[in-house]
Amino acid sequence: MSSADRWLLPDGMDEVLPPQARQIENLRRQLLDLFHGWGYELVLPPKLEFLDSLLVGAGHDLGLQTFKVTDQLSGRMMGVSADVTPQVARMDAHSMHSEGAARFCYSSEIVRTQLDNLLGSRSPIQIGAELFGQNGLDSDLEILCLMLDSLLVAGAENLCLDLGHVGIYRALITDSNLPKEIENQLFSILQQKRLDELNQLLAPWEDQPAVRLIIALSKLNGGLGVLEEAQQTLVGAPSEVQEALQELQQLVAALTEQYPDLNIYLDLSELRGFHYHTGIVFAAYVPKLGQALAKGGRYDEIGKVFGRARPATGFSTDLKILASLQAANQVKAPIAAPAAILRDKAGREVLKDLRSKGERVILLAEEASLPEACSQQIIRKEDQWVITSELSV
Amino acid sequence: MSSADRWLLPDGMDEVLPPQARQIENLRRQLLDLFHGWGYELVLPPKLEFLDSLLVGAGHDLGLQTFKVTDQLSGRMMGVSADVTPQVARMDAHSMHSEGAARFCYSSEIVRTQLDNLLGSRSPIQIGAELFGQNGLDSDLEILCLMLDSLLVAGAENLCLDLGHVGIYRALITDSNLPKEIENQLFSILQQKRLDELNQLLAPWEDQPAVRLIIALSKLNGGLGVLEEAQQTLVGAPSEVQEALQELQQLVAALTEQYPDLNIYLDLSELRGFHYHTGIVFAAYVPKLGQALAKGGRYDEIGKVFGRARPATGFSTDLKILASLQAANQVKAPIAAPAAILRDKAGREVLKDLRSKGERVILLAEEASLPEACSQQIIRKEDQWVITSELSV
Repeated sequence: MSSADRWLLPDGMDEVLPPQARQIENLRRQLLDLFHGWGYELVLPPKLEFLDSLLVGAGHDLGLQTFKVTDQLSGRMMGVSADVTPQVARMDAHSMHSEGAARFCYSSEIVRTQLDNLLGSRSPIQIGAELFGQNGLDSDLEILCLMLDSLLVAGAENLCLDLGHVGIYRALITDSNLPKEIENQLFSILQQKRLDELNQLLAPWEDQPAVRLIIALSKLNGGLGVLEEAQQTLVGAPSEVQEALQELQQLVAALTEQYPDLNIYLDLSELRGFHYHTGIVFAAYVPKLGQALAKGGRYDEIGKVFGRARPATGFSTDLKILASLQAANQVKAPIAAPAAILRDKAGREVLKDLRSKGERVILLAEEASLPEACSQQIIRKEDQWVITSELSV
Repeated sequence: MSSADRWLLPDGMDEVLPPQARQIENLRRQLLDLFHGWGYELVLPPKLEFLDSLLVGAGHDLGLQTFKVTDQLSGRMMGVSADVTPQVARMDAHSMHSEGAARFCYSSEIVRTQLDNLLGSRSPIQIGAELFGQNGLDSDLEILCLMLDSLLVAGAENLCLDLGHVGIYRALITDSNLPKEIENQLFSILQQKRLDELNQLLAPWEDQPAVRLIIALSKLNGGLGVLEEAQQTLVGAPSEVQEALQELQQLVAALTEQYPDLNIYLDLSELRGFHYHTGIVFAAYVPKLGQALAKGGRYDEIGKVFGRARPATGFSTDLKILASLQAANQVKAPIAAPAAILRDKAGREVLKDLRSKGERVILLAEEASLPEACSQQIIRKEDQWVITSELSV
C-alpha cells in the first residue's frame, strides 16, 4: 500500500480540522450550558455496551446501524453506540434512582454502519436532552422549547417545525385489527411516504371504519388548519385520538405565542425515524438542509425492558451539522514570542498575564519563522519583554 | 435474559453519572482553554479509521488494544481509535499543509480491548497536545511545561516527573550489532523491568563494549545525580548518547527553575509504553495512583509512513482519572418554578434573566413534588413572579 492510500478515511467517518473543530467546541459549550440552566444533568454514556442492552426495544433499524464487536473479556457481543437516547433511558431506569422527574443531557460522538442518505455522514456528534418521569403537556412543551432555544442559540434561521402524534396512528391500528403482516407493511409505507401504495394495500379492509380513518389520516398534513380538519375527519375515532388532537392543539397554541416566527407544519401520519416513540413527535427543519436539523418526541415505554417503564420525552441534534450552518467564527490572532521567554522568570509572568486575559501566545523556536497568523510579537528590548505590533521577521 | 442482566455494562466500559460528568466537562474546558492560550488548535479525529492507517508505525501493542470491525461500504477493516496521537500525526502529515511548526490538541473518548492493569478501565477520555515540525530542546520544554501546567490546573499535588531519553538506548543498540531476536527480547525485558533476566540474556555478548554499556544503562535511574553518573559511565558511548545526556541536563535545569516543587526522577533505560518514541520521554505520577497520570515524549519518525516525516513531540492524559483526583465541585442548587411559567410572557422573561445570570431553573409539572436539591422557588404572588427561599411544598 502506498502512503497516498493510507490516509484515506472511510466514507462518512470525518475528521474535523481547525478552525471548524473550535467552532463545534464553542457551540457544544453554549448548548450544554443552556441545558444546565434548565436543570438538565450531564451524563457520559459508554461508547460500547452489550448488544442486548443497547438494542433492546430500539427497533430493527438501529440494529442495522450498529457496529458489532466481540468482547474479549466476556465473549459476549458488544455494539458501538449509534443512538444515545436508549442509552440514557437505560441509565435513568437503572443507574439513577430518582423517583420524580429526572433531566439528563449529553454530547456524544456516535458512529453508524450506513451513510446518512443526504449528507453522507456516519459519525455525527449527537447532543440532546431527555426528560424522564413526567407525563403531560408541560413536559412535551419543555422539551420542544429547549430544542427550539438550542437551534436559535446556534443561529438557525427560518425554522420550520414538523409536529405529529404517534398515538393517533397507534390507536387507529389497535382499533383496526389488521393482520400483523399488513400492519408491518402499512408502517413501512407510511414511514417512507409511499402513499400511492396505501389504497392498494388496504383495499381488502376498506369497509372497516378504522381502516378508512387510517387512509384519511395519511392525507392530514399541512398548516395549522389541519387540526380543525382532523377534528371533523376523525370524529368517530377512539378517545385516545381525540386526546392526542387536543394535546396538539394546546402545544400549537403555546408554541405560536412563544415563537411567533416559527413555521409549524402538522403531519398526523408522520412516523419516519420514530421507532420507539409513543406520543408527540417533532422535527425541526431549516431551508436548504435536506434533512431534519433536530428531532425528538415522547417514548414512554422504552424503560420497560430494563425493568422500569417511565414517562420519557427528549430531543437530539447533530452538533457537526448545527455548527456547519453558522458563519465562521473569527479566530483570535495569536501573539508570537521567542521560546527563550519560557526560561526567563519575568518572561513567564508576561505569558501568564497575557494568557489569563484570553490572549494566545505561540512560542517560536530559535530557527522558526514567524507564523502568518500572528499579528503581534513579543520581543526583548532593553531588558524588558514588550509587545510590538510591528512584526520584525 | 432477565431485565436485571440487561443493564450490566462490560468491564471497564464506564458510564459517568452526574455530578462527575459535569466535573469532567469543567476540567475539559479548562484544559482545552489552556491549550488554546498556548496556540494549540483543536482537532476532532475520527472514531473509526481504516486499520492500516490507524496502526501503521504504531507497534504491536496498539493492534492488540484496537477493536476491529468490517466496513460494510468498502469491505475493508476499520479500527476503533485506541490512541489519538498517531491519528493526529496522520492529520498533520496529510490533512494539514503547514510547513512550519503546527500545534494541535484534542479530547477524545477512546476504547481499548483490554483492561488497564491497575484502574480497570477500557474507556479513557484521552486529552492532549502535540507539537509538529519543530525540533530541539525548546519544543520538548514547551510540551513538558504544558503537561505540568495542565496537571496543576487540574489540582494535582506532589507531582513526580519520570524523565528518560529513548535515543540513548537506540544509539547503544545500533552500536551493538545484537541479533534482531536478542534485541527484541532485550526490549521487552527493559520495558517490563525484568532486570534479573538481563545478564543471562546478554552474557554471550558481554565482551562487546556497547553491550556492557546497555547493562550499565539499566542501572542508571534515580535522582538528579544519575545524570552525572551517566556522564562518567557512558563516556565511551556514541555521540548521540552524549547529546541526549546534554539535552536531559538542560531540561532538568529549566524544569527545576520553573517548578521548584517538582520531584524529578531519571530513568535512562525507561521504555515502558513508549512504542513510537525516539527522544525525550516522560511520565508524571502522583502518590497513591498506581499508574502514570500523564505521559508523552518525542516521536519524530511517525509521520514517515504517511509520506511526511516531521519532528513531533506531545503528551496526553486521561480526563476521567484527572477529574477523579479533584475534590467534588459544588453543584449549583437549582430554583424550582411551576411549569405554567413557560406559558406566561412575564414568566419567560424571569426565566431568561435568571438563566442568563448562571442560575438553574427547573420547571415543575403540576402534580410534581419539589425536588430535594432545590433551595429556592419561584411562585406567583399578586400577579408577580417572585423568588422565595421559603419552600412551600
